[in-house]
Amino acid sequence: MRPERELIDLIREIISRDPEELLEPGRDDASARRLVDGIYVFNTDMVAEATDLLPGMSLRQLARKCVVSNFSDLAAKGARPLFFMASAGLSRDMSDEEFISVVKGLEEGSREFGAYFVGGDLGESRELVIAGFAVGKIESNLVKRSGAKPGDVLFTTGWFGLTWLAFQHLLGGMDLPSDVRVEALKAAYEPIARIQEGIAASAYASSSVDSSDGLYWSLEELSRASGFGFLVERIPLHPMVEMLASKGRIDPVEVAFHGGEEYEIVFSVPQDRVYSLEEEFSKEGLSLIRIGRVVEDRGVFVRLDGKVEEVEEGGWEHFKSRA
Amino acid sequence: MRPERELIDLIREIISRDPEELLEPGRDDASARRLVDGIYVFNTDMVAEATDLLPGMSLRQLARKCVVSNFSDLAAKGARPLFFMASAGLSRDMSDEEFISVVKGLEEGSREFGAYFVGGDLGESRELVIAGFAVGKIESNLVKRSGAKPGDVLFTTGWFGLTWLAFQHLLGGMDLPSDVRVEALKAAYEPIARIQEGIAASAYASSSVDSSDGLYWSLEELSRASGFGFLVERIPLHPMVEMLASKGRIDPVEVAFHGGEEYEIVFSVPQDRVYSLEEEFSKEGLSLIRIGRVVEDRGVFVRLDGKVEEVEEGGWEHFKSRA
Repeated sequence: MRPERELIDLIREIISRDPEELLEPGRDDASARRLVDGIYVFNTDMVAEATDLLPGMSLRQLARKCVVSNFSDLAAKGARPLFFMASAGLSRDMSDEEFISVVKGLEEGSREFGAYFVGGDLGESRELVIAGFAVGKIESNLVKRSGAKPGDVLFTTGWFGLTWLAFQHLLGGMDLPSDVRVEALKAAYEPIARIQEGIAASAYASSSVDSSDGLYWSLEELSRASGFGFLVERIPLHPMVEMLASKGRIDPVEVAFHGGEEYEIVFSVPQDRVYSLEEEFSKEGLSLIRIGRVVEDRGVFVRLDGKVEEVEEGGWEHFKSRA
Repeated sequence: MRPERELIDLIREIISRDPEELLEPGRDDASARRLVDGIYVFNTDMVAEATDLLPGMSLRQLARKCVVSNFSDLAAKGARPLFFMASAGLSRDMSDEEFISVVKGLEEGSREFGAYFVGGDLGESRELVIAGFAVGKIESNLVKRSGAKPGDVLFTTGWFGLTWLAFQHLLGGMDLPSDVRVEALKAAYEPIARIQEGIAASAYASSSVDSSDGLYWSLEELSRASGFGFLVERIPLHPMVEMLASKGRIDPVEVAFHGGEEYEIVFSVPQDRVYSLEEEFSKEGLSLIRIGRVVEDRGVFVRLDGKVEEVEEGGWEHFKSRA
């Protein structure tokens, strides 16, 4: 591994210059900018090689995913990402090429979602660890997790299940048809942050969260924060996963609720705003799936064959599900 | 290790509520606040157990030091810290007590310097890694590294050498008189971020940097950024270190320039502002030491026994000096 200052020079060659930046990236060891009056959202999320680097995933993809997970949290609050910083712990045996891959992943992820990577800190650790910090600005409303009311309609910005399939394939040896495998791996290696959807939803939503820990945990968090329950009447299973489920190979509830590492936004909308929300999403070509509604009883529920059942804990949670 | 959500509940019990926070720490998984028009500074700095946990240092001290290193960078730019976030990678075998120590260190460090710890992210990694993220606001001027001009006077906010002694004692077995040992260990375990000094200096300084990588690197960075050189005419050696140096046990240049892990602010001030600067520091009871001046020739120099010598590289740098 080269000395830190040479690594910083490598970073300077890769990253785009943020026109709002008042300091010099890599020289001033911090980021500064003039912010106009408004509400800003700050988020941090980390990835570590041993825990988050899937088989076959590149370091560039891992780094990009760190950006996605941070921006996804901003989007769930209704914020547009402005810039991204990272502290990276590098292992001693990391090559220049690997280091450059990480920086390119951070740059690529930031630019892809309209923001800038403005540098950060390099340290030494036993494995590659990337801690991302994202700053965004609220465009219409700051949406919390706590605002849902019974009767509100429940939406998500996309289908679930592809990353669950990818994990089963990569870590459990599940055999997949080649077209499904391609889509599933893409979802796991190169997830998308739902920035436009999150911002559009924020004008209407009563509560919102991203689904990075799985749909179950998303709804459980919204339930815990609001004190009400969430009933899923239509399981938002990806069509490719639906097909496999129809062949009896997998359990749709397990896959949709307990997958995790998916970056859809899950949000509730008061009934009288649903029409406007759907109009706007349709007009802007944004992805929207109506999946259920908010109910009085606290908890997470699913309607299966006409019967309502409570969904139990089991989504992905650090230090637990992998124990 | 408990499940992540229980750990978050532990955090909620420990941290003070930031009155500016618009979301609920630990519930909303991000921080949000209204910011008024102004210049804001953002910094990230990480610590890792294997690299940064000194013998005899507690996890609470390590976590607090992570806050100090972030706030020190803000102060060097002239920013007052507003809040602090952290992504922590925890090893599986960490106990509740150890986890609580880390959170208390982050809380304590943030409050000590007038800011709030507002949460962050928990992940899993092979060793304890804490990546801090600090946000501050400029009170008078944003001070870069690049503005020094020949003739400017060079200042620092404190003495150097105590942490060098601590490292020699802890890692190299150097024997120290007990009063020196106490002071040295305090400097290494519980460094101070020079917030008030940094903000006061920012009204006058032409360039500024903190000295976390050692005085040599601080001056080298200021030299590289400005294109001019820095001549130290009075080595700012701590009196206790001076005493040992006078006994011939240590080399003052080595200790003052190549120590590192000290959080003094090193800054240059145009001559016509020096009087006002000294007046203000004196009036506010802030620590200030005049150590030299900016010269035409690029580089870092020291005057020793009347002769000017160039100081060579050798400060603490990740991936190098410890190779």
